Amino acid sequence: MAKQIRVLVWNENVHEQENATVREVYPQGIHGTIAEALKEDVDLSVSTATLQEREHGLTKDVLDHTDVLLWWAHAAHGKVENEIVERVLARVWEGMGFIALHSSHYSRPFQRLMGTSCSLTWREAGEKERLWVCNPAHRIARGIDRYFEIPNTEMYGEPFAIPTPDEIVFISWFEGGEVFRSGCTWKRGNGKIFYFGPGHEVYPIYQHPTVRLVLRNAVHWAAPDTEKWIDNCPQIDIENAPEKITTKGPRLHKKGEAGLR
Amino acid sequence: MAKQIRVLVWNENVHEQENATVREVYPQGIHGTIAEALKEDVDLSVSTATLQEREHGLTKDVLDHTDVLLWWAHAAHGKVENEIVERVLARVWEGMGFIALHSSHYSRPFQRLMGTSCSLTWREAGEKERLWVCNPAHRIARGIDRYFEIPNTEMYGEPFAIPTPDEIVFISWFEGGEVFRSGCTWKRGNGKIFYFGPGHEVYPIYQHPTVRLVLRNAVHWAAPDTEKWIDNCPQIDIENAPEKITTKGPRLHKKGEAGLR
Amino acid sequence: MAKQIRVLVWNENVHEQENATVREVYPQGIHGTIAEALKEDVDLSVSTATLQEREHGLTKDVLDHTDVLLWWAHAAHGKVENEIVERVLARVWEGMGFIALHSSHYSRPFQRLMGTSCSLTWREAGEKERLWVCNPAHRIARGIDRYFEIPNTEMYGEPFAIPTPDEIVFISWFEGGEVFRSGCTWKRGNGKIFYFGPGHEVYPIYQHPTVRLVLRNAVHWAAPDTEKWIDNCPQIDIENAPEKITTKGPRLHKKGEAGLR
Amino acid sequence: MAKQIRVLVWNENVHEQENATVREVYPQGIHGTIAEALKEDVDLSVSTATLQEREHGLTKDVLDHTDVLLWWAHAAHGKVENEIVERVLARVWEGMGFIALHSSHYSRPFQRLMGTSCSLTWREAGEKERLWVCNPAHRIARGIDRYFEIPNTEMYGEPFAIPTPDEIVFISWFEGGEVFRSGCTWKRGNGKIFYFGPGHEVYPIYQHPTVRLVLRNAVHWAAPDTEKWIDNCPQIDIENAPEKITTKGPRLHKKGEAGLR
Repeated sequence: MAKQIRVLVWNENVHEQENATVREVYPQGIHGTIAEALKEDVDLSVSTATLQEREHGLTKDVLDHTDVLLWWAHAAHGKVENEIVERVLARVWEGMGFIALHSSHYSRPFQRLMGTSCSLTWREAGEKERLWVCNPAHRIARGIDRYFEIPNTEMYGEPFAIPTPDEIVFISWFEGGEVFRSGCTWKRGNGKIFYFGPGHEVYPIYQHPTVRLVLRNAVHWAAPDTEKWIDNCPQIDIENAPEKITTKGPRLHKKGEAGLR
Repeated sequence: MAKQIRVLVWNENVHEQENATVREVYPQGIHGTIAEALKEDVDLSVSTATLQEREHGLTKDVLDHTDVLLWWAHAAHGKVENEIVERVLARVWEGMGFIALHSSHYSRPFQRLMGTSCSLTWREAGEKERLWVCNPAHRIARGIDRYFEIPNTEMYGEPFAIPTPDEIVFISWFEGGEVFRSGCTWKRGNGKIFYFGPGHEVYPIYQHPTVRLVLRNAVHWAAPDTEKWIDNCPQIDIENAPEKITTKGPRLHKKGEAGLR
Repeated sequence: MAKQIRVLVWNENVHEQENATVREVYPQGIHGTIAEALKEDVDLSVSTATLQEREHGLTKDVLDHTDVLLWWAHAAHGKVENEIVERVLARVWEGMGFIALHSSHYSRPFQRLMGTSCSLTWREAGEKERLWVCNPAHRIARGIDRYFEIPNTEMYGEPFAIPTPDEIVFISWFEGGEVFRSGCTWKRGNGKIFYFGPGHEVYPIYQHPTVRLVLRNAVHWAAPDTEKWIDNCPQIDIENAPEKITTKGPRLHKKGEAGLR
Repeated sequence: MAKQIRVLVWNENVHEQENATVREVYPQGIHGTIAEALKEDVDLSVSTATLQEREHGLTKDVLDHTDVLLWWAHAAHGKVENEIVERVLARVWEGMGFIALHSSHYSRPFQRLMGTSCSLTWREAGEKERLWVCNPAHRIARGIDRYFEIPNTEMYGEPFAIPTPDEIVFISWFEGGEVFRSGCTWKRGNGKIFYFGPGHEVYPIYQHPTVRLVLRNAVHWAAPDTEKWIDNCPQIDIENAPEKITTKGPRLHKKGEAGLR
């Protein structure tokens, strides 16, 4: 049997505690429902973690044993410790896949990976969303026809302040008249990143069969298929220069020094 | 007369104070020498600012009146206040050009715009660097032949942990045997970004006529030629939906609410 | 006064001759109406050319004096001589802007610049199209609000088989439920390329004030702001190598030879 | 056992017939030596084809059963039938990997996929080339240290007239002083494309163990991991519009019509 992909579903888990509607839609938390969707695929080994846990459940050890991290957040972006954000980024650069869901467009890890504000326009009217497949052979669109629909959704619309995606997998049409790049990929270091728009917490979106299929596909796509990128910034001693040279002029750094950060 | 481009040269100004060699090469600070190079172009209106000033010389008002910001830093990346970093990012997204010089590959603003670690390899041996023009018609390469040489340089080598550049203007060849993507461009929001490799503080690199030409060219390229991108994340009320719709299902947000960050 | 941009509007001019509806909408040909739209901008010097002219009106001399070429075609893609296609490509690589309009997604020059099939889905039902600005500060979107509408249009829908655009300026929403990347940019060599979706010949689309504004904006964006890229593939004689070397091993080519194509 | 990747090594096979030096280095043709290198990997099922065969050995049936096509050509680019070029492109867009080797930068399939001239500079002096890994975790660089060297090579130098690569895997340093983006990737439609610089026919480059490793890695990377992209340009009848609409205004096309090309 091929090795399972180790997936971690992270959720801030706030509105499930505070809002009756959300609790009703997601009695086990959004992370619980997403984890359940992923477990339908026997090739995935699925865990969950939440903001409230020690180190938000994202210890170095946990991340080191995670191939793909899914991130759902909305009300508590600012409560994620900066040290944990840095730790997540470092693992993405090594090769961990990162899937940002819905309102996580404003999460610290996603904003930091993009280098832009990640703003958009929005409307909470329970309108219909139709997601068009722009790249029919993409791994993330496998098993999906030309489009699929979500009957009740929060509208997220353009302009979406992201760097040009490497690939656009989905663009959404909204009943109220907007459009949105709702499925986009990027690479940062050795890590694959996927942003997926649907997922407002007052609607049962993660119960939608095609949304669940997209999540499973995305995990397969984002899983590292290569070695780790061990990031460092080595001083190459003059003796190790590929061509024989001798030092000319003054120096600031000592031999073997680690450099300034 | 066409409107002048307002350029601000920012320098941490640390090694000039602490290291005799650097002080000798740059008696008026690296910022002073770079400003002098830019002033050779009458279309540029040039100011300078340093880490030691109040708000590092980067008040909101100063940035609002800056078209292109050059950034030189090495020893004090961690001393730049986070609030100032955020302010610089916001102005880049609006449209301010940003030129990161040499060891600023590890500066906070550049790392934040890239979303990667920006690590590289390095060697301080005063060896020769030859910069090849990869894009002969690029604005930044104007007036430069097939290549130019810097007699004494710090080697910066691949792998350079950056997202794939939009354009590669220069690739460097080093006497010791390495190569480096030494002139790269990106866009983040409405802001143009250029990274330029040469500039180690113990060598008189910003006195080199072609390096100075590259800086002037880069300012012209990075200057905004468009309107500002005013970043916001507006709730679009249902009455303002382009298509007539009515609200379906529950809501989390109130009408007119600003949304969560 | 700044130098005018020299614009050439090329049109196959077939349906205007053969179809009464089209003739009524465009009595002076689509090229005539587009040229009229561009002439509203005094900074543009506008000419037209059609398939029926000698060398399709695209002699080497004409192209050498063109800064931006607009291309409209639908029924006669296969009638454009291959030699003329190659000539257009060579000028784009040098720096001439190229704007492909509507059904020109299947024109030879556009397909050749993209390297993909450029297929899409379509429906001719006179439905409404709403174009959303995805990049509010882009030169091509200048003066346009969050979106604009075309009351009757041919639907062009995803998947649009293009390489990932450098920038997406517009995405369209269609009354019938589809979406489309209707305003995209790329660069090939030194030439800027813009594809713009609207323009079906049975509707008065090039009479629409915002469409006309987009065309004028796009010409300004696509105009070369740099030197020409003179394309060649030179043999660098060993005496001209930047580093002193001597020939080792056998040779296939003679000194000064032009190389094989 | 996992399914083997079906690889086809295509070679124009001209200089091996006409030039004694080349024949000596590649007694079984360049395709023979490359095939041998690939066969060291039991996951690859390897065939060869040459220009001289009927339809250049690239019948529709052969291509339909090819996962990755390697292309070596130099003297006879213009002798490849246009129909075969189109057939290769169509298969790449469906998902077949394409690996262009050395002088194939000027081959019709590669030029057509790039949409640029693909020119470069060159020198045949048997000098040393050192290829630097720019992306240490890339599948194509697996098992390769920071760099590897080829003792005798033809220099290919910048500017290389290609569209910005999606990823740069290798950049070369040359003894004579030049640099070159010698390992680059792109995607066109559903097909992955890799250009690899080394391979001049008068030197035993395809006997070099690391070059052979790169070729095997590249085949694994370029092999399709997704469904085919079946390219078409369908008319969507009004009854099949996702939203209910009625036809407004005149029409040019009949229901069910295939559209114009």
